[in-house]
Amino acid sequence: MIPEKMMMLGKKSNSIRALFEYGKKRKAEIGEENVYDFSIGNPSIPAPAKVNETLIRMLNEKDSVALHGYTSNAGDTAVRSAIASNIKKRFGFDTDANHIYMTCGAASSLRISLNAIIMPGDEVILLAPYFAEYTVFAEDAGATCVIVSCTEGSFALDMKKLEEAITPKTKAIIINSPNNPSGVVLSENDIRQLSELLMRKQQEYSSDIFIISDEPYRELVYGGVSVPYIPCFYDNTIICYSYSKSLSLPGERIGYIMVSPRAKDDADVFFAVCGSGRALGYICAPSIFQYLVAECDGMTSDISVYDTNRKLAYDALNEIGYTTASPDGAFYLFIKTLEADSMAFCEKAKGYEILLVPGDDFGYPGWCRLSYCVTTDMIHRSIPAFKKLYDSYR
Amino acid sequence: MIPEKMMMLGKKSNSIRALFEYGKKRKAEIGEENVYDFSIGNPSIPAPAKVNETLIRMLNEKDSVALHGYTSNAGDTAVRSAIASNIKKRFGFDTDANHIYMTCGAASSLRISLNAIIMPGDEVILLAPYFAEYTVFAEDAGATCVIVSCTEGSFALDMKKLEEAITPKTKAIIINSPNNPSGVVLSENDIRQLSELLMRKQQEYSSDIFIISDEPYRELVYGGVSVPYIPCFYDNTIICYSYSKSLSLPGERIGYIMVSPRAKDDADVFFAVCGSGRALGYICAPSIFQYLVAECDGMTSDISVYDTNRKLAYDALNEIGYTTASPDGAFYLFIKTLEADSMAFCEKAKGYEILLVPGDDFGYPGWCRLSYCVTTDMIHRSIPAFKKLYDSYR
Repeated sequence: MIPEKMMMLGKKSNSIRALFEYGKKRKAEIGEENVYDFSIGNPSIPAPAKVNETLIRMLNEKDSVALHGYTSNAGDTAVRSAIASNIKKRFGFDTDANHIYMTCGAASSLRISLNAIIMPGDEVILLAPYFAEYTVFAEDAGATCVIVSCTEGSFALDMKKLEEAITPKTKAIIINSPNNPSGVVLSENDIRQLSELLMRKQQEYSSDIFIISDEPYRELVYGGVSVPYIPCFYDNTIICYSYSKSLSLPGERIGYIMVSPRAKDDADVFFAVCGSGRALGYICAPSIFQYLVAECDGMTSDISVYDTNRKLAYDALNEIGYTTASPDGAFYLFIKTLEADSMAFCEKAKGYEILLVPGDDFGYPGWCRLSYCVTTDMIHRSIPAFKKLYDSYR
Repeated sequence: MIPEKMMMLGKKSNSIRALFEYGKKRKAEIGEENVYDFSIGNPSIPAPAKVNETLIRMLNEKDSVALHGYTSNAGDTAVRSAIASNIKKRFGFDTDANHIYMTCGAASSLRISLNAIIMPGDEVILLAPYFAEYTVFAEDAGATCVIVSCTEGSFALDMKKLEEAITPKTKAIIINSPNNPSGVVLSENDIRQLSELLMRKQQEYSSDIFIISDEPYRELVYGGVSVPYIPCFYDNTIICYSYSKSLSLPGERIGYIMVSPRAKDDADVFFAVCGSGRALGYICAPSIFQYLVAECDGMTSDISVYDTNRKLAYDALNEIGYTTASPDGAFYLFIKTLEADSMAFCEKAKGYEILLVPGDDFGYPGWCRLSYCVTTDMIHRSIPAFKKLYDSYR
């Protein structure tokens, strides 16, 4: 008598979470130090000192009713203005408070944005490998998901496949760069080609196709790589930003949506975002965290440990003989599994106490994800196990 | 090319908000002290001292990664257990962490609960006067709203009308006691009669009918009135709780859903709640506020000023000659308008610089809402204006 679909979504929590639970159990059995748990993409470093300092200062100094009171549904205007001017400063892109809607993090940013633009029959293109919850959000918003695989190995856009996948029903394509799970950052050249393709297809079909850019990992890049700011290249863009990873605040749920002022009917799209948030039960993003991010926008925690881990894991695994993607951003290393069945490979890895997430969970079998937001020491200690796992396939 | 409905929901913010904006403009024109703004139901008193003390203590003492990290989607288990044992202690009702799902406040509690149980074609009964967003949430979840008016004046349940409104398609009835906008608290007798009716109808139609109890005002009651705990009377109950009003934290978005362990297929309903939250883009409720409410559950701000305001407004208006509901809870006084057209009455009140919300916004024309979460001084100063407004109808 209740919706089967909701029940099933609640029952089978995503398999990453299940693997994480297995890890906890296994650690209890054989000791924490003997399990190499690379399953979860949780920031492992503290928030920047400024975060707690700012929160404490506001709690001590600001009037309680103002600090903890409702902001407008779209968020505090001064906060949205501060974010807008920072976008201008960092990316040279003109926007304002009337195009920014504060949200409870990336998931709600995505869900609200999809709900704001999807009409019955619309299709949303996902680029594999992709974060598995995209299908949940897109389908619940009423869209059909169309999966387009990126080029194996480089994980760049496959323009030919993309062109074939775009139909008159295509309403949006979700981009996630730096990517979870591949760690790959799309190049400016990729973004330019994509923009040209979408503009051509919009004209051909007299349609609007949005790029929804999911950017929780924007600040987590290494080795001087830069992440192109998509609204500079393509007008119908909606940015879904989150401070979860950059400020190590994933539990506090704070992020924003920016509807590009250059999008067609941008004011109406922004109204639809506001209406969609309202319909989905969002009132405003947590107020103290809104005021916080106005002061910390663009900052990151000290991500040097991620960079250390990244190099260590990449070098060690490639030296053993594994093939991996180029990990320029986020905190993931994507590894080609040593047999075609990546579920079987990850099961086998468990035998060596290594916990990896099969690519199947990201629409990309044949590969698996290692999260290096862990201690550097654990990566060191895991290397012999990775060697044994490799040798077992010889 | 985007959903008209979302756009319109975003465009016409609810009329209470519009009235509030009018008030801001008017105050700028003629001076803050000359406008009697009773439009908004925003807590006007600070959070209990313990709130900021606890937040600062946690920020200083707790590990950043643990404090600001993801909890499980349903919320931190220890937090949920603490709330469950407090329910047992306060209401003598047995529940546990596996029936409690932490949310971003009452709106998300309601939206998630509705999504978890509504099937195509289902009806949801709303008791007028009701909080206007109920229709937005219920319709977006796919339900048809059926409005049943409470008895004029007492605002008790009209059992005859209710019985007529229940059909085989009735999936839920939303209860809100203490009520926004009437301030009325449903008596134990009302709850008993409602339970008996619903049990009889469930049997007659072989259906499940849920009571969804929206309880943001549970702790705001005066004069020794008690609010019956509905799960003690009726099994198929879902509690939607929020700490927004009790702890004066409306902007921080923290509350919970409790699925009664006595509900039919309670485990499945709870799974559906979890799945529904996931589908709507909720990950977890803001983590620091989860830990906070575990320590502050059942507390309130110092609500004595609300009680003072309540008595003052009630006595003054009744003495002038107005008819009002009995304001036993929340922070609202519901007033019979002096002409049948309450929109016209509220427009006329504006001429005396009094801002009231017409009952039409709550599905109850002929009455209007006064929010007394304002300064006591403003109520004092407004009394002559109310007298003039009254006299203008003689």
